Amino acid sequence: MAWLGTLITQTPEDGFELAIKLSRMAVKKTQPDDAARARMRPDYANNADSLTRVSQVVATHFQTIAQANGYWIV
Amino acid sequence: MAWLGTLITQTPEDGFELAIKLSRMAVKKTQPDDAARARMRPDYANNADSLTRVSQVVATHFQTIAQANGYWIV
Amino acid sequence: MAWLGTLITQTPEDGFELAIKLSRMAVKKTQPDDAARARMRPDYANNADSLTRVSQVVATHFQTIAQANGYWIV
Amino acid sequence: MAWLGTLITQTPEDGFELAIKLSRMAVKKTQPDDAARARMRPDYANNADSLTRVSQVVATHFQTIAQANGYWIV
Amino acid sequence: MAWLGTLITQTPEDGFELAIKLSRMAVKKTQPDDAARARMRPDYANNADSLTRVSQVVATHFQTIAQANGYWIV
Amino acid sequence: MAWLGTLITQTPEDGFELAIKLSRMAVKKTQPDDAARARMRPDYANNADSLTRVSQVVATHFQTIAQANGYWIV
Repeated sequence: MAWLGTLITQTPEDGFELAIKLSRMAVKKTQPDDAARARMRPDYANNADSLTRVSQVVATHFQTIAQANGYWIV
Repeated sequence: MAWLGTLITQTPEDGFELAIKLSRMAVKKTQPDDAARARMRPDYANNADSLTRVSQVVATHFQTIAQANGYWIV
Repeated sequence: MAWLGTLITQTPEDGFELAIKLSRMAVKKTQPDDAARARMRPDYANNADSLTRVSQVVATHFQTIAQANGYWIV
Repeated sequence: MAWLGTLITQTPEDGFELAIKLSRMAVKKTQPDDAARARMRPDYANNADSLTRVSQVVATHFQTIAQANGYWIV
Repeated sequence: MAWLGTLITQTPEDGFELAIKLSRMAVKKTQPDDAARARMRPDYANNADSLTRVSQVVATHFQTIAQANGYWIV
Repeated sequence: MAWLGTLITQTPEDGFELAIKLSRMAVKKTQPDDAARARMRPDYANNADSLTRVSQVVATHFQTIAQANGYWIV
């Protein structure tokens, strides 16, 4: 089954969650070892700059997803 | 209740505030522990580069929101 | 009174100034203490990489503002 | 044979895989020595910030590819 | 006289030069002291990462300028 | 003769090569000394983060070039 079937979401909030998912998936595909990623979690989860960098990736994906959804304007 | 109901705002200024909110929300969703985030605040709030990085995330979200709002041109 | 009434400017140069203003405003809203920001100024104003990072934020905002203004094509 | 024949993919997921490929290809073309790249793999694969940076590149390419594919809207 | 009269250029190459100019202008407006900027030049001009960061800003401005010029398609 | 006559390329792959060229040209124009750039090559060619940063610049230019070429859709 596809982990990314569509960029279309019901709401902006769902789009934001999808953006987070995409940002994590690129990490997972670069480092597929679950244990290795788990070991790194304290490094970035307790570092302000690391979290800002994650937020930057989310912002880029959210822009793509928002465009795909016509900005959810009804 | 949705924390992000719409990307549409009345004014550019409201759009800028929403961009700040989105940039913080991605951090919050990556580090949900309120105390952990509070501990990190002095780190980035007193570091010029950290603040510039935050400003970069805001700029990316603001671009998305400005597009969604047709740049608030009436 | 609004600090950001519109993204529309008379000239590209005014748009560039607005981009600088937006980049600073996100910093100000993250660190509202004027004295704290003043203390940090020597840090980034004398560091080439810090200045480049600031320039990157300005470039992102300028892109948004240029789009809003139809690239000032008359 | 071309390594990049088209930006068009059947699904968003294939588009994401292509984005990863493009992000790696720029690295390969800058450092063509396979052994050198292999030596660096532990450096970035076990560093959270490095992985986030990779994820940022993927996000940028994915935006391009999503636009090329009309966001896979059928 | 305006330092940025228009985003329109005759050629892509002129557009690239303008992108470089814009990237430098944001630095100049943040650090207006000519001597201070001159002192920093060896820092970034001999550091690969610093040069890449500068190149990133140029890429962002070049995107804006290319859009403004309809990609110079005649 | 112009080093950048057009953004239009025959294929996506040629577009990718052009993106690499543009990313390097901004470096060259900031540090025109060939020997200085050659000295720095081992620094970034053997550093994973440096290569990722280069890849980010390429991704940004590739987006511009892909847009210019209508994503090479025939």
